[in-house]
Amino acid sequence: MKKFLNKPENFVDEMVEGILAAHPDQLAIVENDLRCIVKAGEKKKGKVGLATGGGSGHLPLFLGYVGQGMLDGCSVGGVFQSPSSEQMLNVTKAIDAGAGVLYIYGNYGGDILNFDMAAEMAEMEDIKVLSFAAADDVASASRGEEGKRRGVAGIFFVYKVAGAKADELAPIEEVKRVAEKAAANVRTMGVALTPCIIPEVGKPGFTIGDDEMEIGMGIHGEPGIHRGKLKSADEVTDTMMSAILEDLPYERNDQVAVLINGLGATPKEEMYIVYRRMDQILKEKGISVFHVYVGEFATSMEMTGFSISLIKLDDELKQLIARPARTPFFEQVQLSV
Amino acid sequence: MKKFLNKPENFVDEMVEGILAAHPDQLAIVENDLRCIVKAGEKKKGKVGLATGGGSGHLPLFLGYVGQGMLDGCSVGGVFQSPSSEQMLNVTKAIDAGAGVLYIYGNYGGDILNFDMAAEMAEMEDIKVLSFAAADDVASASRGEEGKRRGVAGIFFVYKVAGAKADELAPIEEVKRVAEKAAANVRTMGVALTPCIIPEVGKPGFTIGDDEMEIGMGIHGEPGIHRGKLKSADEVTDTMMSAILEDLPYERNDQVAVLINGLGATPKEEMYIVYRRMDQILKEKGISVFHVYVGEFATSMEMTGFSISLIKLDDELKQLIARPARTPFFEQVQLSV
Repeated sequence: MKKFLNKPENFVDEMVEGILAAHPDQLAIVENDLRCIVKAGEKKKGKVGLATGGGSGHLPLFLGYVGQGMLDGCSVGGVFQSPSSEQMLNVTKAIDAGAGVLYIYGNYGGDILNFDMAAEMAEMEDIKVLSFAAADDVASASRGEEGKRRGVAGIFFVYKVAGAKADELAPIEEVKRVAEKAAANVRTMGVALTPCIIPEVGKPGFTIGDDEMEIGMGIHGEPGIHRGKLKSADEVTDTMMSAILEDLPYERNDQVAVLINGLGATPKEEMYIVYRRMDQILKEKGISVFHVYVGEFATSMEMTGFSISLIKLDDELKQLIARPARTPFFEQVQLSV
Repeated sequence: MKKFLNKPENFVDEMVEGILAAHPDQLAIVENDLRCIVKAGEKKKGKVGLATGGGSGHLPLFLGYVGQGMLDGCSVGGVFQSPSSEQMLNVTKAIDAGAGVLYIYGNYGGDILNFDMAAEMAEMEDIKVLSFAAADDVASASRGEEGKRRGVAGIFFVYKVAGAKADELAPIEEVKRVAEKAAANVRTMGVALTPCIIPEVGKPGFTIGDDEMEIGMGIHGEPGIHRGKLKSADEVTDTMMSAILEDLPYERNDQVAVLINGLGATPKEEMYIVYRRMDQILKEKGISVFHVYVGEFATSMEMTGFSISLIKLDDELKQLIARPARTPFFEQVQLSV
């Protein structure tokens, strides 16, 4: 295991300590618990609180989206493990500013269970909570079974849209509505070339041949839909784009935003070679592009691979995506619309 | 070679095509040459033009720093190869707005030769050119021989400071003065765990044992100062910080900005574990931290490793670093000072 770490069992806590030390004006903890992260500074009275949570090992997911114009709090699990419902509750209580708290998280069993429990406990403390599980990975279940899909990088768009709406002091039902609308319009597919190693496990979660790729693999190494010889960047992109475009479907005259997300070890050079082909395909299909994000938005530590996400935009979604945001991991000025 | 690419010989051109397609409002080319990148839009009359250039394979270096508040143009070489003097000249002519052009590049033989030739050719066309080679890697030559050092991630600070100064419409001598001041105050050291592969070569440039690290390795795989068993994150950080702190030296009551730069495959989780230790050391030494940058700023494609840079700040440098900037690869709002 070739990683820069001290004791594997301290991996998550030391990571959080480093993040807090680096960005003390932006992030803080509550209940003296390194696994309960909130936005630093005063709460804005009457603003819906936005919380997420999930396993570690996916930076910037999940805590990296706590900040201005995005989320208010995040509970932090062990590597690839759900945080506890108590941690979620502590974050909830800390960020509630009288307008309720919306949970937005990825569609995984452990997270659903714990967020549901946290919501029940919060309601008993008179905090209104609504929940929403993002499920954008088209490789993880077929059409008609969208509710079984895993949440992956496309949740970035859900955070962005909900964060901008909450900043308008919109009521919680409205914030949830735009989050659901964003999620309904986003589709993602990934491809992996190498596994990653959970520090406390010390060896890869799966093996893959030196000349192989796996299309559709999840961000915890969940099986994909096709394992085979590594093809060219254009061929891989064609396969993934076909699956995504047909799924919603995305059609002529649609406008989209694009996210090419590195899983950890894939260089930006290669991601832009992928975008080159995506751009050709989108032009052929008559689909216009509002904005392109390229970088690491939802990783699997040192996994080699990337995912593509598209979100179909109407005017409302476009305006919300265009808003400025600032977290320690993501900065955006107001985009022109 | 496990990479997402088409023909290896098209790696750089296809990457640039993808970047231009993704960010058409921010970047453009001149002379119809994919290796000559300039900031999109109108030139600001009387502003010093800032140009850089260098080999590909280091994104965001070099072209990723072309944008608002940073650089005006960049010539793009093959992977780990200098661009040509003609390409540098074409960029120079395109970005000159009557106030001259300052070249800021890394201290490598090929780049120096070509930038010097480009400067001579530009002077013959009545464009005033000044040049500056950044040389921040303390592992690459000892104290007293700073001029022999390689330029690595610390050049980010030089770009940031010079970009902010040029935006004030300062004369070229003033822009060069602050660039030199930034460079004189920045020190960097890196460590690598795995090599990277140049696409057209198809195999790693060096080998390193499964349990080994190399401290001081350059961003093209140049030899470092120590190869040995991989140590803990804290021990590695201690070694690197000692070398950096003693070099300038950085002393009690200094204020610094910090850059932890991933070389490609090292996850942000690990970089923050490194920052945790850096923060402890800086506190012990009585050195205060103005701002911390963590991410990929100067990579070696898929190399595993990271570098640490410190820049000692006076009020002028701090004000310039704090200014907003926006490129496709780097966004920063105005920092509070």
